[in-house]
This record gives sequence, C-alpha cells and structure tokens, in this order.
Amino acid sequence: MRPLKNNYYRMKAVFIGSGNVATHLAAGLKEKGVTISQIYSRTLSNAEMLGKKLDCPYTSDIYDIQTDADIYFYALKDSAFKHFIRSFDMPNAIHVHTAGSIPMGEFDGFATKYGVFYPLQTFSKGKPVDFSEIPICIEACNSEVQLKLLDLAKTLSSKTYIITSEQRKKLHIAAVFACNFTNYMYDAASQIMEDSGIPFEIIQPLIAETADKIKTMTPYAAQTGPAVRYDEKIIRKHLYMLIKKPKLRKIYKLLSKNIHKRHTDR
Amino acid sequence: MRPLKNNYYRMKAVFIGSGNVATHLAAGLKEKGVTISQIYSRTLSNAEMLGKKLDCPYTSDIYDIQTDADIYFYALKDSAFKHFIRSFDMPNAIHVHTAGSIPMGEFDGFATKYGVFYPLQTFSKGKPVDFSEIPICIEACNSEVQLKLLDLAKTLSSKTYIITSEQRKKLHIAAVFACNFTNYMYDAASQIMEDSGIPFEIIQPLIAETADKIKTMTPYAAQTGPAVRYDEKIIRKHLYMLIKKPKLRKIYKLLSKNIHKRHTDR
Repeated sequence: MRPLKNNYYRMKAVFIGSGNVATHLAAGLKEKGVTISQIYSRTLSNAEMLGKKLDCPYTSDIYDIQTDADIYFYALKDSAFKHFIRSFDMPNAIHVHTAGSIPMGEFDGFATKYGVFYPLQTFSKGKPVDFSEIPICIEACNSEVQLKLLDLAKTLSSKTYIITSEQRKKLHIAAVFACNFTNYMYDAASQIMEDSGIPFEIIQPLIAETADKIKTMTPYAAQTGPAVRYDEKIIRKHLYMLIKKPKLRKIYKLLSKNIHKRHTDR
Repeated sequence: MRPLKNNYYRMKAVFIGSGNVATHLAAGLKEKGVTISQIYSRTLSNAEMLGKKLDCPYTSDIYDIQTDADIYFYALKDSAFKHFIRSFDMPNAIHVHTAGSIPMGEFDGFATKYGVFYPLQTFSKGKPVDFSEIPICIEACNSEVQLKLLDLAKTLSSKTYIITSEQRKKLHIAAVFACNFTNYMYDAASQIMEDSGIPFEIIQPLIAETADKIKTMTPYAAQTGPAVRYDEKIIRKHLYMLIKKPKLRKIYKLLSKNIHKRHTDR
C-alpha cells in the first residue's frame, strides 16, 4: 500500500451536532478527503438532512454513535455539551469542540486526547463559505494532539492560530460585537428603510465600504458620523425621528454617547 | 468650436467646505472633467490642502468666493449650512448641499435653483473610493435642475436615485446604524482583543463575511449568535467577563435583549 503523506486522508470523523458550524465544517473536511463517518443530532430530521447532504450515516440515538472514529467534533449548543462528553468513552480518539466559549478544561476527566477546533466565522446554512480564508483557532491538551489538530486545520485554511481558552473566550465576545451586533445594526437600518419605502440595496455599498475600511485603518481611526464629530443638532433630530421606534432610539442614544466619549477621553 | 455633448465638461464648481465629503466628491468630479474652480474653507490651511491637492484656487475669506460658477456644493457641518446659504446671492447658479439630514427646503428663499446631491458613502481622507459604485441621492427644486443634477450624478456613478427629503432623513439614520454604529462595533471588538493580546487581523474575515452575507440574505435572516438562539449561559458568561468594561457591558446587554425580542416577537 502506498503510504499516505497526510494522515487526515484516512481520518474518520464523527460530528455530534448538525447546526450551522457542523454543516459547514463537515462539508469542508469532506472536501479535503476526511471521511465523515457519522452525523448525530438529537433531532432525527436534522441528522438526516446533513447526513444525506454529505452522503454519510446519521443517527439520533446516542447509543448508536460509532465508537471507532479518529476524531469527534462536538458542534453543539454550549448547554448540551457537558451532557455529551460525560456520555462517551472512546479513549483513543481525539475529542474537540468547535465553540468559542467553552474552556478546553471541560474535557478534563472525560477524555484523554482532546482540544478545541474553533473556526472564527459566521455560518448560515444557505450560504457556502471559502474555508481557506477562515481563521481556525486551535488549543490542545498536549503537543501531540496540537500537532494533529494543526495539521488538520492547515488542510482547511491558510490561517491557523494557537489560542488559549482565556483568549478564545475574549475572542468570542469580540466576535459577538463584530458579527452578531454588527448584523443587528444592518437589521436596524433595514427596518428604518423599509418603513420609508427605500430599497435596502441602496445602503449595501456603504456596508461593504465600512467593512473594507478596517482592513487598512483601525476602527478607531475609521470612525465617522454625527456622534464622533458631536453634531448635536443631527443627533437630536435623529432621536426625535426615532420616537416611534423606542428600541432603536435607545440604542441610537447609548451608542452615540459611547462613541463621543471614546473619542474625547483619549 | 466643437459642441460638447455633456455640459458638465465645461461646468465650473465651487466647493464650500473641505472635509471628507468635499475632498472625495471634488476629486471624483474633477476626474470626470468638471472644473473645480475654487475651494472655500473657514480654516485657511484646510482650504489650502484641498486646493493644492486639486490644483485649484482656494480661500478662507467668504467675500472672495467666486460668483460666476455653475454649481455650488455645500459640504458643511449642518450647523454651518444655514449661515452660508444666507450669505450668498448667485441666482443663476445651482446650489446643492451634500448632507443626509438637511431638508431641501432650507434653500427656499435663498436660492432660485437648488437641490441635494447626497452620496451615500463613508469617506475618510486617507482612503480612496470608487465613485462608480456609490449611490447618489438626488433631489431638486424643479425638473430642469433635477435633470442637470441627475446628469452630473450619472457621470460619477451607475447608481443614482431620486430621494425625497423625508426619505433622505430616514436614509441618513439608517446609515448611522449601518456604518457609524457598525464601525463602533468593530472598535469595541478591537478593544476587547487588544486587552488579550490577540491581533485584530484574526477577526477581519469574520467582518468581511458578515458584510458580504447581506448581499444575498436579509439581515433578519442572517442573524446568528448567542442572543438570537437565546443561549443564556453564554450571554451570562460574556456579561460577567465584561465587568471591567461597563460601557461595553451595557451595550452587550441592550443589544442582546433587542435581538432576542426582535426574533421572538415576529
């Protein structure tokens, strides 16, 4: 038999979870030659959907989970994670979770080889992503596992980082601001525009440029708008116009105050 | 003399103001053949900087402003605008402002031909922009002026819109959310990362993808993160970790609450 240069070509991976992260990560790994040997989800229809998509076995029965895989990916809601690692005993396999906020230490006592495989990206089921540009943050229980996880990560992406649990927790909070809250700002804009019959497309170039700017400038230096130049007249007008949208009004007020403070305190 | 097909090739434009909008708009117009015949700024050094950049006359003396231009662009802080239009009397020229929040009616009684020329984009002095992709929102006092402004806008951009003052005001608020507040979310992320020694670059692909998603999905459908799936455990952890950053903590709390509400009320 011809020796395989890269071990991950014969790696067998089981995914516990079938959400957005599992869907994209499993598809990305499969494309690189990793065998996805099973998908588990508590909800059979979800397991089935992803299993069929990846052309691999699937189950919703925890007792049917294969025990001979090389690596187990736990891509679950944080609250479900603890329950699962306590249910398993596959000491030879590597166990990794894909979450921003779970410390690696949670595996302690429940697995021998373990780590974290955290792709820092926002995944939506409908939209394909290019994994080669996605930073993958690795943490491992020892250097041997670290090497294996790094190898695997490098098959997917040119951007791999060794990140401690403490750093990863902070990174996750930063990601909530830079992605989830940012998207909510877009959503707020769309609500305001919808009410006035303005098509959302008109604001898309602005959104693209705002994201593009911070590739070459710090966000601090890139800040523009009425709050940073403290144009009280506009701020007051806007607050007045938002009177029928009290939730957005409160956000406008709080963020404007903070932007102004951030740029005068320094 | 060979007749010029496009009148704007012999148009003479004066800019009142030398900030980010004036800088980029004047440069964009000049590139398309418009003669920038003068830059005015209250601060001589600012007028000089832009004047030299565009190789055109400049002044900080309001009495030196040329009176024979075809079009006057008022690219000023809103609070300075009223003062200026009251000082001028060039009835044959078109007077336009470039602001999101000033109603066109403010010209009423002070000019005969007037309108609004509002490029919906974020401009920073250091970063060049591609005007061909920037939506330009036009409003005019009559159809003759509207035609001229539309013609001029179309030389700059493939995206021109007729937008009323009422719509423009709303659009401006939407832009504050989609651009200024979004950028502040990036800034918040960078503050959190800086404290943990994580390079900002690691989050840039996430920011790019977040902006890219809403080209093909609504922001409502693109929403991800602990708030929308109501992962209380993570939200509580994050709030605990933000205890030393009370301003960001308050923002985290308010936005999470709003995202959750937005996705359960519907």
